[in-house]
Amino acid sequence: MAAYVHPYYPLGLELPGVQPLVMPFEKILAVFFTACGMALAAGWYMTGRAKFLSTGERSMACWFLCSGLIHLFVEGTVVLNSKFYQDTSGNILNEIWKEYSKADSRYATRDDFVISMEAVTAFIEGPGCLLIVWGLLKAKPWRYTAVLLVSLGQFYGDVLYFGTCLHGGMSRHTRPEFIYFWFYFIIVNGVWLVVPMACMIHAAKKINNAIEGTGEKKHA
Amino acid sequence: MAAYVHPYYPLGLELPGVQPLVMPFEKILAVFFTACGMALAAGWYMTGRAKFLSTGERSMACWFLCSGLIHLFVEGTVVLNSKFYQDTSGNILNEIWKEYSKADSRYATRDDFVISMEAVTAFIEGPGCLLIVWGLLKAKPWRYTAVLLVSLGQFYGDVLYFGTCLHGGMSRHTRPEFIYFWFYFIIVNGVWLVVPMACMIHAAKKINNAIEGTGEKKHA
Repeated sequence: MAAYVHPYYPLGLELPGVQPLVMPFEKILAVFFTACGMALAAGWYMTGRAKFLSTGERSMACWFLCSGLIHLFVEGTVVLNSKFYQDTSGNILNEIWKEYSKADSRYATRDDFVISMEAVTAFIEGPGCLLIVWGLLKAKPWRYTAVLLVSLGQFYGDVLYFGTCLHGGMSRHTRPEFIYFWFYFIIVNGVWLVVPMACMIHAAKKINNAIEGTGEKKHA
Repeated sequence: MAAYVHPYYPLGLELPGVQPLVMPFEKILAVFFTACGMALAAGWYMTGRAKFLSTGERSMACWFLCSGLIHLFVEGTVVLNSKFYQDTSGNILNEIWKEYSKADSRYATRDDFVISMEAVTAFIEGPGCLLIVWGLLKAKPWRYTAVLLVSLGQFYGDVLYFGTCLHGGMSRHTRPEFIYFWFYFIIVNGVWLVVPMACMIHAAKKINNAIEGTGEKKHA
């Protein structure tokens, strides 16, 4: 049998024991996006009883539920399993990363920044997102503080994710095809710039109004 | 004249045109820490008229003034001047980095993460720090939001700064001598973990109390 030639950029990158996808990529995407849709729907259902939540905050709770589960399970996998690309079991979490690495081979080569950032994302921001869901449902006084901190963590991690690529040359680790560059790399990651920014703006407005309301310079 | 052999780790690292320090390192440190002391003192003087500020918030304003100036001028220099190690003019900002690179040669080799993170620190967090000084002096309603965001930016950048080193092997870019490893690398950078954390705790308390005070679940 001829040796398997991997598709990751730069071509010829040494990845000992690298294995081809077990699932067709359409199936990987279908499973991932269906799971995201189910998480969002579960969030919508869960928050239906909290009548005091505006539609905006209900949507925010759904976002943090879905995002937290992605951080914990999907990103947690790539942090803990440095040899995901050798997997032949068809485990969907490893398959996701075997496919995504076409958009960024730094996951396979264990780039210092990418793995450090993903460790924080998976194991600090992941639980943080789920805590926010609870905080929103129970209208905890710390909920907007948590939204601000977790969203900035997501946003800044993503800025550096794009920043390191821009600084090093955008095409070094990324296949140029539309789906890998534009869809996986730019659009999917772009979601974690746009939505956290919207969450930060919402939380900042709530906080600034509340602080203004106290109007107590003396206790500053 | 024999070629100058640079002191940066790993030894033998190629740094074309690298030049020795112009100033003795004691002078570099003296100038840097005197400038920091002057910034702190100026902050203390400036905030003296704002009688409503507690000692804690007055100290915080001093910290953000000093920290903001370091971000803008010192870290701004290393971002913009990629060839700082070739400088022979004795410019103190370049001298600082020629000396500090003994603790982390990634500044000289233009590591993607280090330069991306420093760019955000210098040009987003730097002005952000100065904005906070103004916000505290004028008791602006957004001041605690800004403290939370800027401090988390500093903290997370520093976590990743240490994280990338831990992941890649702590001694790869750092000379092992006490002053470079412990003082420059661990202690000086450690300040940007400890103080931002204290600032975040202070701001979070203020915010959580204010949000609790509104007590308006209906408007959530």
